[in-house]
Amino acid sequence: MLLRLSTLFVRTLREDPADAEVASHKLLVRAGYIRRAAPGIYTWLPLGLRVLGKVEAVVREEMAAAGAQEVHFPALLPKEPYEATGRWSEYGPNIFRLKDRKGGDYLLAPTHEELFTLLVKDLYSSYKDLPLTLFQIQTKYRDEARPRAGLIRGREFVMKDAYSFDVDDAGLDASYAAQRAAYQRVFDRLGLEYVIVTATSGAMGGSRSEEFLTPTAIGEDTFVRSAGGYAANVEAVTTVAPPALDWSDAPAAHVEDTPDTPTIESLVAHANAHQPRPDREWTAADTLKNVVLALVQPTGERELLVVGLPGDREVDLKRLEAGLAPAEVEAAGEADFAAHPELVKGYIGPGALGPNVPVAEGAERTAVRYLLDPRVVDGTRWITGANEPGRHVFDLVAGRDFTADGTVEAAEVRAGDPAPDGSGPLELARGIEIGHIFQLGRKYAQALGLTVLDQNGKAQVVTMGSYGIGVTRVLAALAEANHDDRGLAWPAHVAPAHVHVVATGKDATVFDAADEIARDLSGRGIEVLYDDRPKVSPGVKFADAELLGVPLVVVVGRGLAEGLVEVRPRAGGDAQQVPVADVVEHVAARVRELLAD
Amino acid sequence: MLLRLSTLFVRTLREDPADAEVASHKLLVRAGYIRRAAPGIYTWLPLGLRVLGKVEAVVREEMAAAGAQEVHFPALLPKEPYEATGRWSEYGPNIFRLKDRKGGDYLLAPTHEELFTLLVKDLYSSYKDLPLTLFQIQTKYRDEARPRAGLIRGREFVMKDAYSFDVDDAGLDASYAAQRAAYQRVFDRLGLEYVIVTATSGAMGGSRSEEFLTPTAIGEDTFVRSAGGYAANVEAVTTVAPPALDWSDAPAAHVEDTPDTPTIESLVAHANAHQPRPDREWTAADTLKNVVLALVQPTGERELLVVGLPGDREVDLKRLEAGLAPAEVEAAGEADFAAHPELVKGYIGPGALGPNVPVAEGAERTAVRYLLDPRVVDGTRWITGANEPGRHVFDLVAGRDFTADGTVEAAEVRAGDPAPDGSGPLELARGIEIGHIFQLGRKYAQALGLTVLDQNGKAQVVTMGSYGIGVTRVLAALAEANHDDRGLAWPAHVAPAHVHVVATGKDATVFDAADEIARDLSGRGIEVLYDDRPKVSPGVKFADAELLGVPLVVVVGRGLAEGLVEVRPRAGGDAQQVPVADVVEHVAARVRELLAD
Repeated sequence: MLLRLSTLFVRTLREDPADAEVASHKLLVRAGYIRRAAPGIYTWLPLGLRVLGKVEAVVREEMAAAGAQEVHFPALLPKEPYEATGRWSEYGPNIFRLKDRKGGDYLLAPTHEELFTLLVKDLYSSYKDLPLTLFQIQTKYRDEARPRAGLIRGREFVMKDAYSFDVDDAGLDASYAAQRAAYQRVFDRLGLEYVIVTATSGAMGGSRSEEFLTPTAIGEDTFVRSAGGYAANVEAVTTVAPPALDWSDAPAAHVEDTPDTPTIESLVAHANAHQPRPDREWTAADTLKNVVLALVQPTGERELLVVGLPGDREVDLKRLEAGLAPAEVEAAGEADFAAHPELVKGYIGPGALGPNVPVAEGAERTAVRYLLDPRVVDGTRWITGANEPGRHVFDLVAGRDFTADGTVEAAEVRAGDPAPDGSGPLELARGIEIGHIFQLGRKYAQALGLTVLDQNGKAQVVTMGSYGIGVTRVLAALAEANHDDRGLAWPAHVAPAHVHVVATGKDATVFDAADEIARDLSGRGIEVLYDDRPKVSPGVKFADAELLGVPLVVVVGRGLAEGLVEVRPRAGGDAQQVPVADVVEHVAARVRELLAD
Repeated sequence: MLLRLSTLFVRTLREDPADAEVASHKLLVRAGYIRRAAPGIYTWLPLGLRVLGKVEAVVREEMAAAGAQEVHFPALLPKEPYEATGRWSEYGPNIFRLKDRKGGDYLLAPTHEELFTLLVKDLYSSYKDLPLTLFQIQTKYRDEARPRAGLIRGREFVMKDAYSFDVDDAGLDASYAAQRAAYQRVFDRLGLEYVIVTATSGAMGGSRSEEFLTPTAIGEDTFVRSAGGYAANVEAVTTVAPPALDWSDAPAAHVEDTPDTPTIESLVAHANAHQPRPDREWTAADTLKNVVLALVQPTGERELLVVGLPGDREVDLKRLEAGLAPAEVEAAGEADFAAHPELVKGYIGPGALGPNVPVAEGAERTAVRYLLDPRVVDGTRWITGANEPGRHVFDLVAGRDFTADGTVEAAEVRAGDPAPDGSGPLELARGIEIGHIFQLGRKYAQALGLTVLDQNGKAQVVTMGSYGIGVTRVLAALAEANHDDRGLAWPAHVAPAHVHVVATGKDATVFDAADEIARDLSGRGIEVLYDDRPKVSPGVKFADAELLGVPLVVVVGRGLAEGLVEVRPRAGGDAQQVPVADVVEHVAARVRELLAD
């Protein structure tokens, strides 16, 4: 393959696009790989399409090696299957919906669980047909509220989605393991660093769930890991609850005047000044903060919820939503407080909350659901609101003085928190989700009636797994991981070409020599990008080569008079002067090395 | 490649799908290549996807060979570019429209002229950048009123669309010729018979326009051809008008009572009975029929139109619409006649019509537009309506007694009509449109401001060509052209595999031998489908092999005891008994032959 820059449909830009914040977005646009068509919707130019094709090829090969068979579903789909599983409403405004000319409801599919399930139901009927894993590489749509970071969170994007079908749990475990191993091979081959983290399954339902994240400071996902090998998405971190405490020696709860202490900070200061603790200072961790939130179901139904958690922790809405999916959570507003005068802002305590909470004599109580952080175990003692302005209750003991409707993982995870598996303290990092594998179980098969007859002729509901790779996002992650200030620096396996030949100056002999080198390399099966532009300065050509990011740059210029050509690795390392007679052999060998890595 | 039927995701069906009318649709579904997801929307199963990939590969290679560069545009696009060219409204209900969560208008693109134009405008600015031809292979959407014939007229389908950009007309001609030649190579390589016909450009605008049709009785498009080499879409056929006649000897027009003659047939019968012609009988060709129609603009604006044509011809609405695009034409209704009492149904004559038409004294006249068939030349004499019930006018001479607002190609084309280029009488045939190439000219570049600076630094509007191949439709056309009663019979270049190995019976030695043959062939780079299903009868296996349509079938069965294996060409020809030791070599040679064709 030989692409000549004089005719290649590409233009590099010196300026970052105004809407770009992350390096992959800036550089992919500047280098002429992609171009924005609408928010979160991109056009692929020739060089970008070449890289995308290479990423797809790696995914396709590893899927085939793992025994998955390729199919292809439409993007435009009727509502009915998604209604049968409840996702038509659960997705809320996050999907694109439309009507056809007859008024039929359609969507642009964000994932295809329903269609794969129905297809297998259509074709298969016996346990002998299973196991089966199908996949597609296909364009998907999500109407993101905030498309961002170029290809990292788009509204039209390419995904590989695979689904496994098994007759029993052991089969699902095996299918899951095969896909998990295939994902590792895909990312290994692409040279993309990744961490496999335990995840929640969100609106998809199901049980075992892991994400492949590539660590990067610009990642949207925070994850945690311990030195002992634990790794999880923050949404999936479970709190290590302390053991319950004996409360037999605890003093009775007592209400104190705490004027002007609507915040944890002001409350702690007041307590230290007026109700000092003999052994140590009060801290925020001694207070029980009760946060009023609103739970919004996909149907639009809205319900208040109070979450009680130690005052030194903030509520992490994403963690809370993961536990309450598919509902979304938002802050309560003035109207909510107006409708619930028993919730005294800044002074809310458990005494006012929930059907299971004992109520002080004469106090108002509310039917708002009350959930506690798992750290609030029986016997823990708290300073918390007394449900009157300027008053708090001290020595309120969980289990003795109050209970709640349950616990919830709502508190933020912090560096230093213990890993749930006892493998040490957690550290926090950021990453981009590039893959997600999870065990759907029987949810979709049950909803859509996918059964097979077992050995005894009895109908068994099939159990499924779902496995996704964000193909366009992987390309962006590769750009994030392989660039510097001057541009992209692709790994050889996904680069749009292996070698970038630059002819500099105006000398016809230089162009003739460069032309011959480019053609000879191409003749050996090496992919060559050849900058043959006649009237472009060497500086511009070098800058373009660095921006475009082809792994080896061959410069044919002044040195030619001495019979020398320069070979520079784009990603770093020394430039070498190579005799022109040897350069094709030399470069071919280096390309072989790069591709063998 | 070796696909085992025991695990391949495919199920053949014995019954035709209820909604299928044409062979390609029936067989592609029955053979497990595609599956309906919604009206006009299909899922691709593994075998179908393999064939589709091969068709795409041929198209992609020939596009590259013709110098076209591949890009990829989104399917989901904002309204604005389509509004700038007027197509947002012109498409009417034929496109899928939707709103995003912010209320922005989007469409699922039916073609991408606007986006290609804007992309080139974004990147290029000089005549030196041209010529340029870009293409994509991409999923497109049209909300067809009547999706039909499976893949032939779908609502989600794959198209290759290419666009050329030139600075002048000579450049456009060269780009057009390059694409035209590439199309010929594509269809030649696919072994698909085609006719290149002159076409109209419809809602696209533009000048030179040709369609590639593959002749088939189930085709939606009627085309004509002459023995002398003329070929055209019926919409593009221009009528050969006879020379004007001298009317000096014509008698004056005279109105006659013709009671109960609202049809041409009844009128001709009456005239022969009561106003006999001395030289011969009157025929329908002597009458001038005036048909009232309504013209509906994409904006919804509706206007009446009367078309005058010889009484022996029907109006062809598709031809008429081609001349009046983007308006659509419908029959006039009772309300239209009620609003225009001067249009006396069954007795309408030119005397009542149009601003240019002389009006008989005292007669009503109308402002309805009046267009004539080109055969109604000056000097021709007609029997036509007298604008009173039961009365007709005789010897009404065109040019002398009436004129109209213009001519229009509204009459049906009939076998035997003269070819417009004088190359003889036309014959009619039916075909499927598999490709369309046309010169858009400057319409899109003008509307969207795509100019480049010429040698003199002056801005020139770019001239464009547009070139489409319906990739999924081509696959269906291949199935139409390559099947028999028993199933599909693919040409080797697009078949999902080259060889279908069938193991029959229950004998383990048969399966072992078949397995070895399948693996050996696969090891030589031959694509093998291997029917290794253990408990399926030979009859079912043979029927499946004929349905699936792989070009060579190798049967390993009873003959093995005598050391023989049978090799059958699927498309016909004798089965051969080949010694098992030679079969791999023999089959490999035959596959090479088939692929060399």
